[in-house]
Amino acid sequence: MSGFVEGERVLLIDEQGGKYLVRAEPRKFNTRFGVVDLSQAIGAQPGTVIHSHLGKPFVVLRPSVVDYIQKIRRVPQVLLPKDAAQILANTGVGPGSVVVDGGTGSGCLAIFLGHLVRPTGHVYSYEIREDFVELARRNIRFTGLEDVVTVKQQDICQGIDERDVDLVTLDIPKPEDAIPHAENALKPGGHLFVFSPCIEPVKRVYEALSSHRFKEIFTIECLVREIEVKPNATRPKTRMIAHTGYMTFARRI
Amino acid sequence: MSGFVEGERVLLIDEQGGKYLVRAEPRKFNTRFGVVDLSQAIGAQPGTVIHSHLGKPFVVLRPSVVDYIQKIRRVPQVLLPKDAAQILANTGVGPGSVVVDGGTGSGCLAIFLGHLVRPTGHVYSYEIREDFVELARRNIRFTGLEDVVTVKQQDICQGIDERDVDLVTLDIPKPEDAIPHAENALKPGGHLFVFSPCIEPVKRVYEALSSHRFKEIFTIECLVREIEVKPNATRPKTRMIAHTGYMTFARRI
Amino acid sequence: MSGFVEGERVLLIDEQGGKYLVRAEPRKFNTRFGVVDLSQAIGAQPGTVIHSHLGKPFVVLRPSVVDYIQKIRRVPQVLLPKDAAQILANTGVGPGSVVVDGGTGSGCLAIFLGHLVRPTGHVYSYEIREDFVELARRNIRFTGLEDVVTVKQQDICQGIDERDVDLVTLDIPKPEDAIPHAENALKPGGHLFVFSPCIEPVKRVYEALSSHRFKEIFTIECLVREIEVKPNATRPKTRMIAHTGYMTFARRI
Amino acid sequence: MSGFVEGERVLLIDEQGGKYLVRAEPRKFNTRFGVVDLSQAIGAQPGTVIHSHLGKPFVVLRPSVVDYIQKIRRVPQVLLPKDAAQILANTGVGPGSVVVDGGTGSGCLAIFLGHLVRPTGHVYSYEIREDFVELARRNIRFTGLEDVVTVKQQDICQGIDERDVDLVTLDIPKPEDAIPHAENALKPGGHLFVFSPCIEPVKRVYEALSSHRFKEIFTIECLVREIEVKPNATRPKTRMIAHTGYMTFARRI
Repeated sequence: MSGFVEGERVLLIDEQGGKYLVRAEPRKFNTRFGVVDLSQAIGAQPGTVIHSHLGKPFVVLRPSVVDYIQKIRRVPQVLLPKDAAQILANTGVGPGSVVVDGGTGSGCLAIFLGHLVRPTGHVYSYEIREDFVELARRNIRFTGLEDVVTVKQQDICQGIDERDVDLVTLDIPKPEDAIPHAENALKPGGHLFVFSPCIEPVKRVYEALSSHRFKEIFTIECLVREIEVKPNATRPKTRMIAHTGYMTFARRI
Repeated sequence: MSGFVEGERVLLIDEQGGKYLVRAEPRKFNTRFGVVDLSQAIGAQPGTVIHSHLGKPFVVLRPSVVDYIQKIRRVPQVLLPKDAAQILANTGVGPGSVVVDGGTGSGCLAIFLGHLVRPTGHVYSYEIREDFVELARRNIRFTGLEDVVTVKQQDICQGIDERDVDLVTLDIPKPEDAIPHAENALKPGGHLFVFSPCIEPVKRVYEALSSHRFKEIFTIECLVREIEVKPNATRPKTRMIAHTGYMTFARRI
Repeated sequence: MSGFVEGERVLLIDEQGGKYLVRAEPRKFNTRFGVVDLSQAIGAQPGTVIHSHLGKPFVVLRPSVVDYIQKIRRVPQVLLPKDAAQILANTGVGPGSVVVDGGTGSGCLAIFLGHLVRPTGHVYSYEIREDFVELARRNIRFTGLEDVVTVKQQDICQGIDERDVDLVTLDIPKPEDAIPHAENALKPGGHLFVFSPCIEPVKRVYEALSSHRFKEIFTIECLVREIEVKPNATRPKTRMIAHTGYMTFARRI
Repeated sequence: MSGFVEGERVLLIDEQGGKYLVRAEPRKFNTRFGVVDLSQAIGAQPGTVIHSHLGKPFVVLRPSVVDYIQKIRRVPQVLLPKDAAQILANTGVGPGSVVVDGGTGSGCLAIFLGHLVRPTGHVYSYEIREDFVELARRNIRFTGLEDVVTVKQQDICQGIDERDVDLVTLDIPKPEDAIPHAENALKPGGHLFVFSPCIEPVKRVYEALSSHRFKEIFTIECLVREIEVKPNATRPKTRMIAHTGYMTFARRI
């Protein structure tokens, strides 16, 4: 592997596993373990250890898309990577796939999928709120996926421009209104994915689906539980995120 | 999209959602809804409806990798797509990644990951049992991923040939024995993933990890619960798969 | 403890943990481990071992209410003991409490609660279907709780005769119709418990509660997961009952 | 129902569902909704509304054992009522049962069970730490169960005085050491219950049980998930308690 070039994104990991996303550049950076001179990262190989002014060690690594997403996402009610991953478990989406994403929000899902369909695939993400469009575009540039993910300030409930797409994802308040457009956009065998924190929109989606060409309709929720593993004290963690949302899948036929 | 060529894999979906993986070829195929002449699929566009001798409709689609995996996998104790997807949620693996997979089994995980790292990445899968090696190779050819996934009849606990890899996955009885080799094979920042149906190997893995260069160590389980959505009868399904395995992640530093 | 008298209920446990509810009486009883002469149980102390004609051992025990209920209940969609127990966890019901139970069904919940409010409390159970009334009465006699549990062939949605009761339980298709009667029957501080397999009736119950004198309204579901513990193979069981019903609690003020 | 006598325990519920355990006595009590003159409760019927100096309403109710326990318990790692209730779901414990409780702690489980075995049953609770013995005795008097629950400052791993008991519960660090004593104390058909936050003690208990007269051995965990029910926003709560402890049951034969 090559060393970091000046200006490149660097992931710092402190001795307690704390992670910082910075750049290799001549700048001082404050952490709970002292001030780190980030110019040390320029030319360094990933895996190298640099030190703060207190002599505390920091490993420098190339960030992955998951490192980026962990820095972007904020609220627990949103679709988390554990959920986004279920799209991969239940559709054939992968390199080369064309995805339409309704409800960009901060762009996390678009980024997650963009990373996986590149370099030949593409994600077209629809968002009506201007502030979200800007936030998402900033986040997409942050992860270097601007060639793969396009954010459009358009209402997906008014129509989808793309055709023959492999996947349409919907994370919007009234997903039922986008079903007819998803039907038109999807190629036969293509997949629809709807994320809804509440059960009422799920019911409306089923009603909408019943009058369109979809099959293999099912709804899941995904719970991830963390386990603490210690020599004589192994147990699930006391608290967990119990719900993010219901995920409905359907296949265009 | 182009029509099916003779000999191409075709996914048939019957009117109740039953799925059949066949080929477009001059052959009769028996289903619960009558005999289908598969030569009808030759030249047909995906999404077309063909009929059995009883007049029952079947949609013809291009199968996705998930369709293939659903036909391959059998026992519920194994790592399921819901679990494999958690690798995506917690690592940056994607197109171009290099993966070493310990314990090929029937090849499901290797296929799942091979689909996602193609065309420039690669999966090297280690398996000691000759019968599994053959079964996996057959399954890999079945999914058309033979250029991306290589099965080696070698014991991963004896060593890993590859270097600078992005991910090492272990689904073997004694994963602790492969940890030193995983450390050598992984590039800094690379990820280790260990799947264990039981808790005892998880504990041994933690012990092994403590004397090697790994951080960000955590263990999760992933539960997927299906919801039945009906006009006046919406509820989680009565039964679910309550456990496949514990998933331990660690990052090489 | 005294020995079994002729005609008394006896729980037989075979060497694999299989349980049989029989009587101490001069009768042959067929099991998978041979024929047992039940007259051996007459006069025997609980804990004694008797044998089948094949020489296989059977422990004889006095059955508990849970042993009875396990023999009574059948379908997994019904309220199970794990759920009934949540009533105890969330109300002060116990010896001396007066309970009204809407929707007797096979009588399992009435029996479970009858056992816990005896000897001074009482359970009045309402059921409209004659066949269920008879089945429940038979089950109640079977468990010896006929002095504590009264089954009434009446529609609880038409009214509740009792007043000043500590708990009203509803396991009926339209629980919302019984809410006004529950309000009248409950004493201040008394508890309402509604069991619904589906979410739609839960929503209707909340709507009904909003116009009556209830507070501390909440809804839970209870999941019990079994763990297999073996020397080197400890893990949750592969399958579990993922859903029986939603349980809504409210307190009359 | 009769009105509150002076000095009697009273449960106040404010307009947001906040609960306060006080006494009916001539005393001012501060709440977030103003100062309440508790002498208003003397002679009042349960269900009556009294007011703070700000005119805010408070319902007065007779507290149940669950109200008491909610005020007593503190940390989430301990056995919660949802767990204690599983004892009732899996044993025949009820009015008249004799229980031995190992590891009194703050006395919550002893109180919960004491409430359910009264008036003719009894709970003998063993605790080695003097401060816990005192705390538990105070809590037991607080709930008025001092005639039903006896706390002994003794180590249950050194022996159990009682014989022919229906249930032995263990919530101690080394439950395996109490198994031989539990065997002696339990009557045939009696139940053992072991609560362990971690899996390692569970494994040691199984090992210990294998050389004693126990059958029907199984281990469960109980998850309670709360559902938010709102007109157009029904969903499980975002967070939940994911683990309190493993519960192991066994039956003395």
